Amino acid sequence: MAKQYAVIGLGRFGSSVAARLYESGQEVLGVDVNMERVEDSNEFVTHAVIADSTDPESLKAIGIRNFDTVIVAIGNDIQASILSVLLLKELGVKKVIAKALNKLHGQVLEKVGADWVIFPERDMGIRVAHQLLSPNVLNFIEISKNYSVEEVRATEKMKDKTLRELDIRAKYNLSVIAIRKDHELTISPPPDKIIDEGDVLVVIGENRDLERFANLS
Amino acid sequence: MAKQYAVIGLGRFGSSVAARLYESGQEVLGVDVNMERVEDSNEFVTHAVIADSTDPESLKAIGIRNFDTVIVAIGNDIQASILSVLLLKELGVKKVIAKALNKLHGQVLEKVGADWVIFPERDMGIRVAHQLLSPNVLNFIEISKNYSVEEVRATEKMKDKTLRELDIRAKYNLSVIAIRKDHELTISPPPDKIIDEGDVLVVIGENRDLERFANLS
Amino acid sequence: MAKQYAVIGLGRFGSSVAARLYESGQEVLGVDVNMERVEDSNEFVTHAVIADSTDPESLKAIGIRNFDTVIVAIGNDIQASILSVLLLKELGVKKVIAKALNKLHGQVLEKVGADWVIFPERDMGIRVAHQLLSPNVLNFIEISKNYSVEEVRATEKMKDKTLRELDIRAKYNLSVIAIRKDHELTISPPPDKIIDEGDVLVVIGENRDLERFANLS
Amino acid sequence: MAKQYAVIGLGRFGSSVAARLYESGQEVLGVDVNMERVEDSNEFVTHAVIADSTDPESLKAIGIRNFDTVIVAIGNDIQASILSVLLLKELGVKKVIAKALNKLHGQVLEKVGADWVIFPERDMGIRVAHQLLSPNVLNFIEISKNYSVEEVRATEKMKDKTLRELDIRAKYNLSVIAIRKDHELTISPPPDKIIDEGDVLVVIGENRDLERFANLS
Amino acid sequence: MAKQYAVIGLGRFGSSVAARLYESGQEVLGVDVNMERVEDSNEFVTHAVIADSTDPESLKAIGIRNFDTVIVAIGNDIQASILSVLLLKELGVKKVIAKALNKLHGQVLEKVGADWVIFPERDMGIRVAHQLLSPNVLNFIEISKNYSVEEVRATEKMKDKTLRELDIRAKYNLSVIAIRKDHELTISPPPDKIIDEGDVLVVIGENRDLERFANLS
Amino acid sequence: MAKQYAVIGLGRFGSSVAARLYESGQEVLGVDVNMERVEDSNEFVTHAVIADSTDPESLKAIGIRNFDTVIVAIGNDIQASILSVLLLKELGVKKVIAKALNKLHGQVLEKVGADWVIFPERDMGIRVAHQLLSPNVLNFIEISKNYSVEEVRATEKMKDKTLRELDIRAKYNLSVIAIRKDHELTISPPPDKIIDEGDVLVVIGENRDLERFANLS
Amino acid sequence: MAKQYAVIGLGRFGSSVAARLYESGQEVLGVDVNMERVEDSNEFVTHAVIADSTDPESLKAIGIRNFDTVIVAIGNDIQASILSVLLLKELGVKKVIAKALNKLHGQVLEKVGADWVIFPERDMGIRVAHQLLSPNVLNFIEISKNYSVEEVRATEKMKDKTLRELDIRAKYNLSVIAIRKDHELTISPPPDKIIDEGDVLVVIGENRDLERFANLS
Amino acid sequence: MAKQYAVIGLGRFGSSVAARLYESGQEVLGVDVNMERVEDSNEFVTHAVIADSTDPESLKAIGIRNFDTVIVAIGNDIQASILSVLLLKELGVKKVIAKALNKLHGQVLEKVGADWVIFPERDMGIRVAHQLLSPNVLNFIEISKNYSVEEVRATEKMKDKTLRELDIRAKYNLSVIAIRKDHELTISPPPDKIIDEGDVLVVIGENRDLERFANLS
Repeated sequence: MAKQYAVIGLGRFGSSVAARLYESGQEVLGVDVNMERVEDSNEFVTHAVIADSTDPESLKAIGIRNFDTVIVAIGNDIQASILSVLLLKELGVKKVIAKALNKLHGQVLEKVGADWVIFPERDMGIRVAHQLLSPNVLNFIEISKNYSVEEVRATEKMKDKTLRELDIRAKYNLSVIAIRKDHELTISPPPDKIIDEGDVLVVIGENRDLERFANLS
Repeated sequence: MAKQYAVIGLGRFGSSVAARLYESGQEVLGVDVNMERVEDSNEFVTHAVIADSTDPESLKAIGIRNFDTVIVAIGNDIQASILSVLLLKELGVKKVIAKALNKLHGQVLEKVGADWVIFPERDMGIRVAHQLLSPNVLNFIEISKNYSVEEVRATEKMKDKTLRELDIRAKYNLSVIAIRKDHELTISPPPDKIIDEGDVLVVIGENRDLERFANLS
Repeated sequence: MAKQYAVIGLGRFGSSVAARLYESGQEVLGVDVNMERVEDSNEFVTHAVIADSTDPESLKAIGIRNFDTVIVAIGNDIQASILSVLLLKELGVKKVIAKALNKLHGQVLEKVGADWVIFPERDMGIRVAHQLLSPNVLNFIEISKNYSVEEVRATEKMKDKTLRELDIRAKYNLSVIAIRKDHELTISPPPDKIIDEGDVLVVIGENRDLERFANLS
Repeated sequence: MAKQYAVIGLGRFGSSVAARLYESGQEVLGVDVNMERVEDSNEFVTHAVIADSTDPESLKAIGIRNFDTVIVAIGNDIQASILSVLLLKELGVKKVIAKALNKLHGQVLEKVGADWVIFPERDMGIRVAHQLLSPNVLNFIEISKNYSVEEVRATEKMKDKTLRELDIRAKYNLSVIAIRKDHELTISPPPDKIIDEGDVLVVIGENRDLERFANLS
Repeated sequence: MAKQYAVIGLGRFGSSVAARLYESGQEVLGVDVNMERVEDSNEFVTHAVIADSTDPESLKAIGIRNFDTVIVAIGNDIQASILSVLLLKELGVKKVIAKALNKLHGQVLEKVGADWVIFPERDMGIRVAHQLLSPNVLNFIEISKNYSVEEVRATEKMKDKTLRELDIRAKYNLSVIAIRKDHELTISPPPDKIIDEGDVLVVIGENRDLERFANLS
Repeated sequence: MAKQYAVIGLGRFGSSVAARLYESGQEVLGVDVNMERVEDSNEFVTHAVIADSTDPESLKAIGIRNFDTVIVAIGNDIQASILSVLLLKELGVKKVIAKALNKLHGQVLEKVGADWVIFPERDMGIRVAHQLLSPNVLNFIEISKNYSVEEVRATEKMKDKTLRELDIRAKYNLSVIAIRKDHELTISPPPDKIIDEGDVLVVIGENRDLERFANLS
Repeated sequence: MAKQYAVIGLGRFGSSVAARLYESGQEVLGVDVNMERVEDSNEFVTHAVIADSTDPESLKAIGIRNFDTVIVAIGNDIQASILSVLLLKELGVKKVIAKALNKLHGQVLEKVGADWVIFPERDMGIRVAHQLLSPNVLNFIEISKNYSVEEVRATEKMKDKTLRELDIRAKYNLSVIAIRKDHELTISPPPDKIIDEGDVLVVIGENRDLERFANLS
Repeated sequence: MAKQYAVIGLGRFGSSVAARLYESGQEVLGVDVNMERVEDSNEFVTHAVIADSTDPESLKAIGIRNFDTVIVAIGNDIQASILSVLLLKELGVKKVIAKALNKLHGQVLEKVGADWVIFPERDMGIRVAHQLLSPNVLNFIEISKNYSVEEVRATEKMKDKTLRELDIRAKYNLSVIAIRKDHELTISPPPDKIIDEGDVLVVIGENRDLERFANLS
């Protein structure tokens, strides 16, 4: 069954969250103080209303208690962001997610009850820097302090060799989980699998080993 | 050998990119038109200068040609962002990365020569929506159109069972790559590994299978 | 021994607090972001500095931890008020008193750690209304939900009568604690004390009895 | 019979005065130039109108002469405050009360006819400072230049002693008028009354004696 | 002996007053909050200073008590005008003249002590209207409610006639005080004086007779 | 027959001109770009319209050609004042009177065709300075470069003397045209007329003689 | 057959282009975001609409694809100018002409697809300078790097001489194409044509010869 | 000998005029109120100064009388433009050229003495429209009301034909003055000259004939 989400603040970040939720078949209410933004959001939310989320009466009027999750994606108005989160928790919203502009803002959001505080620009900056540092790494997730899963583009040196010949586990202490060639994926590839230039290897291991592998291989 | 990066625009996104690069031992030049921002950036860049990146003379004066990669992280001034990218490419900078506020802005950036266009808020919005839709999924990367690697939190139903008993491969067509308990990671866990509540499973497979597993298990 | 106080925000309310503390021989540090206000405060504080109380480095630089009590009297900037209180508590200030503009602001201040939240204009409004309702009442304190001590101006009807004749305790169920004639005060006045018009009686009792006495006598 | 009050300026101070008067059953007219404030005041005034109190025709149109008392609670516009008071007196309003921002403003208000000039923030600042200086004093009124009635919290030293044992009159030259335990009040407590920690004593006496008692006992 | 004047507010009106006084050999101090105006006034005042006339300390610092007469010619800031007049009278200035923007402003200025209140634009408007109504009247002063002295231009009908022939006293009940031909003036002109077209007659009489004479002759 | 006047710009000066003309029974059209001013002018003009006097179509639409005289009393917008005068003359208005803010502005107004340029604040400043210099002079008109008619208040020294005794003509070379006592006026007073303190003498003569008489007598 | 033009931006330049096209019988659509400008353009365009040319939906709604040529004459908003050109080309407009404020702006316009970039103020400045340098030259076109056709006013020295006597071809290496006397034009004038002062000669030749001829003759 | 020019207002138009004059070896003084513009003009003027051209003293200080020609290229401030022209003529500058924003502005400039009034954007708009209407016409000058000289690009139809074959004079009543092939120019081309596609013909004749030729040939 579809859940009910409300997104307060329909700027770039809020719109993106709302649109993805809506595309997944969820019911999404868009809320903003700006009429134009509310109008522009018609294509990617179920309903959209003009409302001031720092006014308890407005929040009650739109029945905010009935929403499972409320995302406070207010752009630059730190005060409005804080007061909105406080009110949402007071009105009994179970899960309140809030975007923070900086560390201090994030701390206040937690104090007034935010269940999850997000720093979109800081986190996206980190992802971009990571990719610059290891250009062969296409994507990654850190799964513990020192370990990651990464997508690494095969380089010329790997070309026409089998996994056995490359001996990645011994040399780099990494496991190859899957190999992608164009849009076709081989999970748990066999040792005699031959690597083409441009193949993408999904590997798991320690970060320092991954870095060595991504940059030198 | 360390590369040379310049980051133009030291707002939240630019600062985050610069800081991460600097922490990785790279040489990073911070550039902004705002004196206060330049001063505040001293802790996370190698050098920082006040300069107008839409003025060719200013860019030459800071020797921008010598940088391997320039990140144009200008906040809201679309005009300045476009002119800066044009100038950087004209001056011969090899790799110019630019932040776009929206699709149209992104198209212009590509036309004037940007090598990589980033939409931080849109992309972060997508990540947040994904996580809301599958709350047990802690992190993920899409490795092809239909396949992903995901971190999934073990639920009560999995508690005290071995991987063999859970039979994830047969039931969900997924491979368990690793299991994390607190900060300890077991890569390629053996079939008799017992799952505790709160363990995190790193699994690979088709998105629809991952979704079934993450939400129902 | 004199205590150390810091007053952040040297507007009308902050200046008044600081001046009274300083007159009582306390050490008072005045803090404001506005140079002119800092200069004007020289007459009623021990020291005064220009500093931004939302910047942790600035607060450390003025040694804010060493102050026993900090009063956050920031005028209209709710955001600055909230962030300042959070920082002061994080830096270990024992007692933080903060002025709130409205109920919601007050709630956030408590959540981020304020030890005492004050609503000067609301409270002063209540005092003024009280006095308008009972013009003969010059001053009052509520000492429990229903009981108050009040200063009541003697009316013409009381003139030239003794306390015994007036029989205030029996008729109004009130105790006369003291009588003030001009600047001279008689505590626990004897029953044969004669009341002049213009004398002020300090009485204690239930609010409804006090109201009857103040308005009708 | 209820009186008729008009409150001009529905900011924090004006709203507080109006609300308290209205709760006491008085007829209160709220006046402001700002539509939003007028709308928000519906809950705490009998009627509310948008009107410019510096325009004689507007004041006549709302029948301002018929009000017993008019409170000019205009926030920051000194000019509007002065002109309003002048007009109200010219139109024959008997009692005009006005809020002043500073001493000079207060002087002008008196010159143009204000019957009572109030300095809410200055006075509230004084009250707050007083309480900081004597933390055990919960509330107070000055009843002459040197004498006050104060509520003093009983300290550990007083615990389990009778009033006779404490001998407050002899040692501090103060009279104990009442003792409050939680919400129960004993007026003129007997000498064998035993004090508990946390009891509140209502005492009368000279300020220097009260200070000694409040801080040292 | 020259008197000492201070002019506060060096706009068009204030500058004009100051310049005329200075040309007459008086000592004139120019005061304004605006640096540029103070600099520009060097040519038509003895001294000029930047000072805020609503700040008692500033007024004392320039020794305002020593001036015989102070003209408050502040342009549009009614509040500053009122506070300045109040302060000047409090500081003991004997004669304070103030420009008012409208009737209400004028009333307040009188209440706070202005010795003479001027309405330059209103009065000049009246003079211009008067001249439009009687185009032959070049200038005038009302010397009582119904009587004026006026300069009237001789019209064609008067040309080449003697005063006796014109018989102005009999026909219009007016006295011809003087006749001006170019820059030469004949006071109490003889009856056989011949009028040329373009001569200017200075006449005294009742307003209705003057109007008849000016428009019809 | 009443003439037709239009007044463009209904500020303090324009309103004053318009009101005086209207009181004299003339037809007056008030014109301003500001709706509020147009509404407020209803009491002192025949008609009032909102129109932009720098737009030829607007001027034609209100039939400006039909007006005998147009007064351009635009407050501070020099550009609008210049363009309006140009257009009015181009449209054939016979007499255009315009208010100038300063000498340069006045010169341009003449170049573009203004028939009469007025400097209200400068002229009023001169009148005020004149009166300050000769406090006994109540009013005056200059009738040639060196001669004036003035109203002079009788001083104590003149008290109880006849005009013959005072011998004003011989001593000061002045003629006494009239004497006003309260509201009663005596034109061409006889030599034995006795002066009371407070009488007002209307005298004609050379400026230097008038000054001597006004200040020393 | 008339073509269809759209002019985006109805400022001075855009209005001038639109008016001239409309006068030539073309269909011209005027587009601006400013209502007033759209209304004022009624006299010189076929239709005029309020629309934001940076919004693809707005451009589609006005059927911009159907226009043969679109002139982007946006005044000072470089960003809007760039985005409009990009969108117009994406929507398939065949010929897009755009006004640039400076060289950099011009370069971006070309990158995003502008077919013709115009610098009106720069080009007009060059024409004016040219005319100042050669005051006898009334107009000119450069037809190659070194050759121009110019209109040159005949000077006194040429007066009453025939073309043969002047021998312009031999002395200055120039051909006289035509001679204009008032509004009458003689193309390929015969050698015995006599020059009057004030005649205008249309000559062709090298720039340095033209300059010699224009300034010295 | 080089002349002396001053350009007041260093925006796009003023800079372009100044630069072209300076390149031609003239002495050019650049004047602007804006420091940045004055600094940026160093490359294309002899001297540049910050000065307010509406202040007579400033103009005298820079010795403006000594300049042969002054160009008032002030951007949008109509008032400053008018006052500057008036002052320049009053100070005796012989030739004053001024840029007008619209017709009304132009009229005032002429009234206050401008010797030449230019409308750069209007005129450039006309040129652009002309070129759009006749795309084969590369450039043109109108030499009388109905006659022009134009550069016309040869079309395919003219290809490989001699001028005699094309018979332009007979068919279109036009004279071919010159033919340009790339950068080479043939003045008065012989009748057997063969036209290549892409050649540019310089022709003279009546406008309607030129239009026929340019569009149809």
